[in-house]
Amino acid sequence: MRNLTLLTDLYQLTMGYGFFKHKKHEQTVVFDLFFRQNKLITYSIAAGLQQAIDYVLNLRLNDEDLDYLRSLRLFDEDFLAYLKDMRFTGDIYAVREGEPVFPGEPILTVKAPLIQAQFLETALLNIINHQTLIASKSAKTCRAAQGDSVMEFGLRRAQGPDAGIYGARAAVIGGCSSTSNVLAGQMFSIPVSGTMAHSWVMNFPTEYEAFMAYAAAFPDNCLLLVDTYDTVRSGVPNAIKVFEYLKARGHAPKGIRLDSGDLAYLSKKARKMLDAAGFADARICASGDLDEVSIQSLKSQGAKIDIWGVGTKLITSEDMPALGGVYKLSAVYQDGAEIPKMKISDNTAKITNPGFKQIYRITDNVSGKSVADLIALRRETFDQTKPLTIRHPVDRWKTMTVENYSLRPLQIPIVEQGKLVYDFPSLQEIQTYAKTQLDTLWEEYTRLEMPHLYKVDLSEQLLTLKDGLLKELKEANQNV
Amino acid sequence: MRNLTLLTDLYQLTMGYGFFKHKKHEQTVVFDLFFRQNKLITYSIAAGLQQAIDYVLNLRLNDEDLDYLRSLRLFDEDFLAYLKDMRFTGDIYAVREGEPVFPGEPILTVKAPLIQAQFLETALLNIINHQTLIASKSAKTCRAAQGDSVMEFGLRRAQGPDAGIYGARAAVIGGCSSTSNVLAGQMFSIPVSGTMAHSWVMNFPTEYEAFMAYAAAFPDNCLLLVDTYDTVRSGVPNAIKVFEYLKARGHAPKGIRLDSGDLAYLSKKARKMLDAAGFADARICASGDLDEVSIQSLKSQGAKIDIWGVGTKLITSEDMPALGGVYKLSAVYQDGAEIPKMKISDNTAKITNPGFKQIYRITDNVSGKSVADLIALRRETFDQTKPLTIRHPVDRWKTMTVENYSLRPLQIPIVEQGKLVYDFPSLQEIQTYAKTQLDTLWEEYTRLEMPHLYKVDLSEQLLTLKDGLLKELKEANQNV
Repeated sequence: MRNLTLLTDLYQLTMGYGFFKHKKHEQTVVFDLFFRQNKLITYSIAAGLQQAIDYVLNLRLNDEDLDYLRSLRLFDEDFLAYLKDMRFTGDIYAVREGEPVFPGEPILTVKAPLIQAQFLETALLNIINHQTLIASKSAKTCRAAQGDSVMEFGLRRAQGPDAGIYGARAAVIGGCSSTSNVLAGQMFSIPVSGTMAHSWVMNFPTEYEAFMAYAAAFPDNCLLLVDTYDTVRSGVPNAIKVFEYLKARGHAPKGIRLDSGDLAYLSKKARKMLDAAGFADARICASGDLDEVSIQSLKSQGAKIDIWGVGTKLITSEDMPALGGVYKLSAVYQDGAEIPKMKISDNTAKITNPGFKQIYRITDNVSGKSVADLIALRRETFDQTKPLTIRHPVDRWKTMTVENYSLRPLQIPIVEQGKLVYDFPSLQEIQTYAKTQLDTLWEEYTRLEMPHLYKVDLSEQLLTLKDGLLKELKEANQNV
Repeated sequence: MRNLTLLTDLYQLTMGYGFFKHKKHEQTVVFDLFFRQNKLITYSIAAGLQQAIDYVLNLRLNDEDLDYLRSLRLFDEDFLAYLKDMRFTGDIYAVREGEPVFPGEPILTVKAPLIQAQFLETALLNIINHQTLIASKSAKTCRAAQGDSVMEFGLRRAQGPDAGIYGARAAVIGGCSSTSNVLAGQMFSIPVSGTMAHSWVMNFPTEYEAFMAYAAAFPDNCLLLVDTYDTVRSGVPNAIKVFEYLKARGHAPKGIRLDSGDLAYLSKKARKMLDAAGFADARICASGDLDEVSIQSLKSQGAKIDIWGVGTKLITSEDMPALGGVYKLSAVYQDGAEIPKMKISDNTAKITNPGFKQIYRITDNVSGKSVADLIALRRETFDQTKPLTIRHPVDRWKTMTVENYSLRPLQIPIVEQGKLVYDFPSLQEIQTYAKTQLDTLWEEYTRLEMPHLYKVDLSEQLLTLKDGLLKELKEANQNV
């Protein structure tokens, strides 16, 4: 295993040193990790928790790391000795991987000594930002495919090895059924898929010979790439000839792959040719710059595509390659008492939510659908037998009252006093969980065009706290 | 070191198995790695070669890998035994890291047994696509900053750990002077930078106390983040008070950082306030969603910013998060003879360049500027004492004749018969090389708005070969 401990920003260390010098480093604090509102991803699928927790629990600076930090000439020996023994001793609460989450929700909360909580920030953001981004893009892509298989094909265009490896993992959480990435397949037990490239076809004197050679090697897994020269006049007819050869010998051909051209036209044309030749069971797989928009468009055009191979646009989340997660201080503890903290901003929506919090999902007991989420202080309790009124965090006049509902806390304990208290589910279980939870959202929230925004409201107590702090902060910093 | 050997697409293995079954797997072939024309990156800075070659030279399937492949039930034991002993035994030619390169140019060429050349494809593309993308984005960003220091700050928004680590490396190749990423600093000897976050300020009762505490810990490295509450009314005045305290004790304050708001206005206002207080040497650092466009705009507005911190938009290359490099078969060898190969396409610009090739950069001996690049067959020779006429690869009527020029071959041998024959330069040397080479391009090619397209022409011999092959391929695949 790689030692990733120093995967942090220098300022976490300079601040840590400053806190150490002022003896504030072991003060217990609370930080929340959340995403801000953005145009393209109105719902996200939380992902990356397992790798983030691996990082936290393996946090350990070795001698080489300490020598390197010493070489920067920023820190003294006392501090380096402290870092050498530093382990994570705090608590982490988080939503499950696969949970649909919304802007502003603390999907992970760290309660720990200040120096530790700060040190972790960068890696937690890096890992969770990335995987949540790709899982969310994958969910959109797979929903556009309406239940068809979607294969993740993007390794060659991913932003480095990890982006390919953990991107494949996240793509599966969002709904992909397989990956072309063999290492990700090995690491996470993801089904792997893939057959041939154009170079296979070009390596034989003719396309027909290339197809026959492939059929000889993989008689029971024969999926032929038909667009190297001319899909309709050469590729599909050659594939049919080879399929006839296989059929005569008792093998069922798998199908064909289209990787260029007008996929709507070519898939319909190829479907007719395959059907007419008696290969109604041969599947048509399509690839080539696909994403949720082009898949939805091809579906609406009646394209005869059974399996979708999605590469660059999924593995990089091309239209929005960063989710912009942040990690903000929400409380410090002094003499055992919680002092809520808040970052103010000119932009009301950017003012953070103070205090040690929980997220609740409100479900309508009749439809089983999710109605809204509520962010509340962790110390609050709710009586689910009584109607609940929730309020928009910025436009305060917008309220909604629900009856006959259930409240489910979304954050669960993952690490307590530095010890793992959570059993990580398998990737397959996470995928199933994501799908089940996404199905509790009305389609109005998940559609691609002008999705309705899912409500994330704040409890009255949290709103009151926020208002009070805002007033205090304005007063304290008005005159210098 | 991680074993990344299986960082490949499954089809490299299924094709490998097919070639093995047909005893074609050890046929020598040539593959070229190149980028296609794209809207946003008209020039690229080659990067990632060192990590790509590390992958190639460490290629080795261990028992665990073989067990995994066995479990897929696709391959027989003979093939797995072959893979177990497979090492890279071929040749690799590539352009230097830091070399400015253009669409269509084979920046890396592999001449190797077919099964090896194919196996490597995915990792070579993954690594070189990523680093070249970020180095190119960084070059644009740094040129917009007109020689000011640019700090890479993007780790938290990078697509996983490697994207942060190797993205920082690539950002330095493109011109960044430092990174916030401590692990990248350690791995590649990059200067690291960073001071404080908003959470530092929020952890103290007042901003002034927070600044004083930081000054006490870092009296000689005191750069204060001034926008937590109110930059003009609170942040800068508090910073000045602290600077006065430091100055009185013989320390020179470093400066301030602005991370939000109108950076043009705030930087000018802060500059005046600092100057008036006698801190003309205090630097102003700005950050917050910056990229080459906003930096150029701030520069043109006369913003008083000395140091630029660039995060998300650089580390993800937000406007174009994948470069789209491809790896195409260009020749196979039969009985010692080279048989050129070409992938045809409906789109003339997408037809690949056949044969074993070299790229030449044509430099005007008078101005020292680069005039154009020429892709030629490796067996061709050129007499630099005679005028040279080059021709546009698609619009054949466009020719240009140069006199008093020099030709420099851009590809150099990196690996020969599986052995490294190249000394990798230091990252600092690569950065210097990139800057020197970029300076040989007229600004018309590198400007952000409507850049003129640098000419990449093909030699007459290559054009003739291409035309002949196109005719042959059309005839061979016309009737099935």
